[in-house]
Amino acid sequence: MKNYIGIDIGGTFIKGGIISQTGKILYNTQVKTEASMGADRVMDNVATLVETLLKETNLSKCEFDGVGVGVPGIIDEKNGVVVLASNFNWTKVKLAKGISERIGLKVKMSNDANVAALGEATFGAGQKYDDSVLVTLGTGVGGGIIINKKIYSGGLSAGAEIGHMIIRADGVQCGCGAKGCFEAYASATALIRQTKEAMQQNEQSLMWQIGSLDKVDGKTAFDYAPLDLVAKKVVEEYIKMLGVGLINVINIFRPQVIMLGGGVCNQGDNLIVPLNKFVNENCFANGLLPEVPVVVATLGNKAGFIGAAALYMV
Amino acid sequence: MKNYIGIDIGGTFIKGGIISQTGKILYNTQVKTEASMGADRVMDNVATLVETLLKETNLSKCEFDGVGVGVPGIIDEKNGVVVLASNFNWTKVKLAKGISERIGLKVKMSNDANVAALGEATFGAGQKYDDSVLVTLGTGVGGGIIINKKIYSGGLSAGAEIGHMIIRADGVQCGCGAKGCFEAYASATALIRQTKEAMQQNEQSLMWQIGSLDKVDGKTAFDYAPLDLVAKKVVEEYIKMLGVGLINVINIFRPQVIMLGGGVCNQGDNLIVPLNKFVNENCFANGLLPEVPVVVATLGNKAGFIGAAALYMV
Repeated sequence: MKNYIGIDIGGTFIKGGIISQTGKILYNTQVKTEASMGADRVMDNVATLVETLLKETNLSKCEFDGVGVGVPGIIDEKNGVVVLASNFNWTKVKLAKGISERIGLKVKMSNDANVAALGEATFGAGQKYDDSVLVTLGTGVGGGIIINKKIYSGGLSAGAEIGHMIIRADGVQCGCGAKGCFEAYASATALIRQTKEAMQQNEQSLMWQIGSLDKVDGKTAFDYAPLDLVAKKVVEEYIKMLGVGLINVINIFRPQVIMLGGGVCNQGDNLIVPLNKFVNENCFANGLLPEVPVVVATLGNKAGFIGAAALYMV
Repeated sequence: MKNYIGIDIGGTFIKGGIISQTGKILYNTQVKTEASMGADRVMDNVATLVETLLKETNLSKCEFDGVGVGVPGIIDEKNGVVVLASNFNWTKVKLAKGISERIGLKVKMSNDANVAALGEATFGAGQKYDDSVLVTLGTGVGGGIIINKKIYSGGLSAGAEIGHMIIRADGVQCGCGAKGCFEAYASATALIRQTKEAMQQNEQSLMWQIGSLDKVDGKTAFDYAPLDLVAKKVVEEYIKMLGVGLINVINIFRPQVIMLGGGVCNQGDNLIVPLNKFVNENCFANGLLPEVPVVVATLGNKAGFIGAAALYMV
C-alpha cells in the first residue's frame, strides 16, 4: 500500500501528516510556522516536520513520489512559486524548490483552500461526488473547486478566488481593494463585524449581556438569535449573503455538492437548514435541475494536509 | 480538407453555415425559426437549412461526422436535450434526436453562448488564447467559458450562467427570479432601462431631444454622454456594473482574454477603454499578475454557427 505526505502551511502552525491511499492517517503533527522569521525559516520548519513524520512512521523517503504542500495565497503551481502570501508578506517566493532542496523529495504546491477542497473531495464530505466546491468561512472566505475529482484553480492557477466575487457592488470595503466581495460579508470576521454593528445600533439588544463589544465572536449572534430580534436579523442577513455567494458558485459551476468549512459551521442545522432553503430556491433554473446540497465539511483542520498529500495521488 | 456544419437556433432566425477546418465559410444562410409553431416545426426548419447548405456547397452528407447545434437555454449536452429554453417555451425537448432523425447525421448540441464562445476562441478574438470567456450583451447576458480551447459548461452542462451571477444582493429584479443578477445591470435591455429611468428623473437631460422614452435604445446614453451629465452618469454606472461582473469572471477563471459581444460593443473605445481600466484596477491581485484584456469579439452574429460547427473539430 502506497503512502503520501501532505503539509499545510498556516499562519501559526504548519500541519503535516502521512496518509495511506485509503486516507487513513498513519501519523500527523504540527510545528510552529514562524513566518515572521522569514521564508527560509518556514522552509526549515517544513523540512523538520517531514523528518519527524518519516521518523515516527518508520518510513523511508524512497517510498514517496514527493510531498504535497498547501500555502495560503496565490500560487503559481506550475513553477512552485508563491506569487503572493499576504499573511506572510511573501511575494514571488520559490517555495517548492526551497523545500525540495531541504528534504530531497519533489514538491507539488497549491493554494490552501484548493488542497482542503481536494482533501474533502477525496476522503471527506465530497467523497461521493466528482464535482464539488469547498467554501471555508474563516478570517477570509476561501474557495476550492473540484471538477472531476481534480483541483480547478483557473488560469495561471490564480483563479478560484471565490471569496473575491463581488456580490454587492459598491458594498463593504474588502481587504483586497475592491468593494462588496463575498469575503466581506460571509467570513467569520464579517459576521463578527456585523454583530458588533448591530449591537452598536441597538442598545437594547440582549447580546449586550456578553459584557462588551470585544467579547463578540462568530457565535454571539447565533447564540442570541432565538431570544433577540437584533441577533436574529444579523443571522438572517449573514445567511442570505452567504447564500448569495453560494448561488453564484452553483450558477457558474453547478457542482454536485457545496461543502462548508470553518468555525461558523459549528452552528449546524441553524445555519445549514435555512441556507439550503435560500440557495436552492434562488439559484438559476431551480426546480428543473437536481438541488445542490450544502453540507458541512467533515475533515476539519486536517483537510489541508490530507488534501496536500492527495496532490500526489493520481 | 475536412468541412463542418454549424447551426445556431435563435429567437427569430436559424443561422447555419459550412466552414472549412481553417474557419473559412464556404456558404452560410438562414431560415425563420418559427418557434411559435412548436419544436417539431423548428426541427423541420433546421433540416431544411442543412439540406440547403449541402446543396449550395455540393457537399455530401457522408463527408460530415455530424452537425453542431447551438440553442438558447439550458442544454443537457450529454443527452442532447433542451432542459429549458424560456424564449421558446420549451422544457425537456429531445432536440438532438429530433434533428438527427430528420437529417441522418449525428448531432452535438450546446448552449448558444457556449458555441459563440467556441467560435470566437477557435477563429475569432480568442484565437491566440487557450483560456477565454465570451460575454454577450443582448436581451440578456450570455456567457461562454473556454478552458484549454474547449467549452466549460459546468456540471450537467448547466453552469456557466455568468448572466445570473448576483453582483448586487437585494438589487434589481431579474427575470430568473433572483435579485441583482449581472444580466439585470449589464444587458442591452438593462442599459435601455437605466437610460429611461435617468431621463424620467431628469427632465432637463439633453437625451429628451430624441423625442420620447420609447425612442431610447442601447446607444442613447452613449450618444449623449459627451454633452449631457445625466447620460454620462448612465454610461459610467453601466460600465462599472459590467466591470464588476467581468472582475468576478477574472477572479474565478483568470482567463487570458475576455471577449465582449452584442450591439453595445459598437461603442468601441468609449466602452472598452474605461472598462479595461476599471476591471484591471479592481480585480484580485492586480499588479501581480498579467492584465486580462477585455476586447470586442470579431465574428459578430456568425460566431454561433461557426462555433457550433467547431463542436465537431477535435
